[in-house]
Amino acid sequence: MRQPTVILNQPQLAENIGAVARVMANFGLSDLRLVDPRDGWPQDRAWASASGADWVLDAVQVFPTLPEAIADLQQVYATTARPRELRTPVVTPRQAAGQLKAAAESGQAVGLLYGGERAGLETMDIALCQAIVTIPIDPKHHSLNLAQAVAVTAYEWRTGLADEAPPKFQGEGPAPAEQAALTGFYEHLEDELEDAGFFFPPEKKDSMVRNLRALFARASLTDQEVRTMRGVVTALAKGRGQRLKRLAEKAQSRSS
Amino acid sequence: MRQPTVILNQPQLAENIGAVARVMANFGLSDLRLVDPRDGWPQDRAWASASGADWVLDAVQVFPTLPEAIADLQQVYATTARPRELRTPVVTPRQAAGQLKAAAESGQAVGLLYGGERAGLETMDIALCQAIVTIPIDPKHHSLNLAQAVAVTAYEWRTGLADEAPPKFQGEGPAPAEQAALTGFYEHLEDELEDAGFFFPPEKKDSMVRNLRALFARASLTDQEVRTMRGVVTALAKGRGQRLKRLAEKAQSRSS
Repeated sequence: MRQPTVILNQPQLAENIGAVARVMANFGLSDLRLVDPRDGWPQDRAWASASGADWVLDAVQVFPTLPEAIADLQQVYATTARPRELRTPVVTPRQAAGQLKAAAESGQAVGLLYGGERAGLETMDIALCQAIVTIPIDPKHHSLNLAQAVAVTAYEWRTGLADEAPPKFQGEGPAPAEQAALTGFYEHLEDELEDAGFFFPPEKKDSMVRNLRALFARASLTDQEVRTMRGVVTALAKGRGQRLKRLAEKAQSRSS
Repeated sequence: MRQPTVILNQPQLAENIGAVARVMANFGLSDLRLVDPRDGWPQDRAWASASGADWVLDAVQVFPTLPEAIADLQQVYATTARPRELRTPVVTPRQAAGQLKAAAESGQAVGLLYGGERAGLETMDIALCQAIVTIPIDPKHHSLNLAQAVAVTAYEWRTGLADEAPPKFQGEGPAPAEQAALTGFYEHLEDELEDAGFFFPPEKKDSMVRNLRALFARASLTDQEVRTMRGVVTALAKGRGQRLKRLAEKAQSRSS
């Protein structure tokens, strides 16, 4: 069974990246990906703080954007507080471990996403994820260190491995699509909606895009469903084109 | 109910003491005791790394020996690997949380003991404890950072507290739409797709409709999301009114 990938979105401090690598190694994880690390990569200070978990750091992959970093993953859970704007399911670290384990056992590539030290995750990033993992922090002191957040979720993953009867993940049937297929669909849909003048007023476009993506991310589409939805968008948009053509022709014949 | 005391036996780095204070605060703990800290106490670097959990550090008590530090506690669990020499019960972090919670609820003063960064705990120290907590570390990389060990056990304590009122799945927020609203949306979508010639070959229409509906049903849309999706369908199929009018006018002026 493949272990979860850990994705750090715009991490700032190399020491924290090293501490994340260390705690990943503690709990048996090794695939670490960085999205746009603030100070570039590689950084010696990461190795200095990894306490020997060099094989994790040596294999780090760096991506310019989050969609690229998660392109081949099928289930991505974001560790963050729940944003009010989204209806993405919220699970505990333990529930996340159980669900991701069941998904991984059925052959899916799964990932855990964490935001950078200062800014955390944007709602737009969370909208790409299938679920939100919320660690039960005391609201009185809610700034959790990045490596601690990884520690808690990775600990639950490893603890869950020892559990005998995990909860079933979404039953049987075809696996969810890779995130790259979803991204392709989102962009197709958004391009067509842009053409159709849907994003109005323009300043609302970001939140409209976010809400649409989150809605589809929640449904955890299969490849077949992604193709179906692309077909839906194409059919509707093309239909509009024909309608416009008809209207234009009508106008033309009326004016001539 | 009194929260567990955290005892660090001969800690070395002030940064780690600060990181422990921070993660204690994250999980609602505040009583921190140090046994014979290597560099003395207080240390500015601890405050610098506590990320604002100053109240924990301000209240730290320092003791020359472990027996003095745990003198008033009734249950002390040591987080460490199990020493061969002792037959002290070994529990998981989760079992420890459950047992300590039961003890605390019955009015006992409970504590969690951690060894220093380099040497860990001596068998003699462990022998003072009622149980050993073993975190399920990968033997390939077993050096767990001190604050991470506190994080995992404190997280289990806090999770155990919440077990009676578990976090709601999907949290709060708007309720899912009634089925009637969904049906209205489905029919709207299907009418437009029919117009656009999407359902081809015709004998596949039923299964295509079913699959589309199942996809949206799974996402459990809110009323607002149903309205959004209806807007998407309308925009794709017809364009927004203004734009359509402009295009028709453009066509007209071009032809006249």
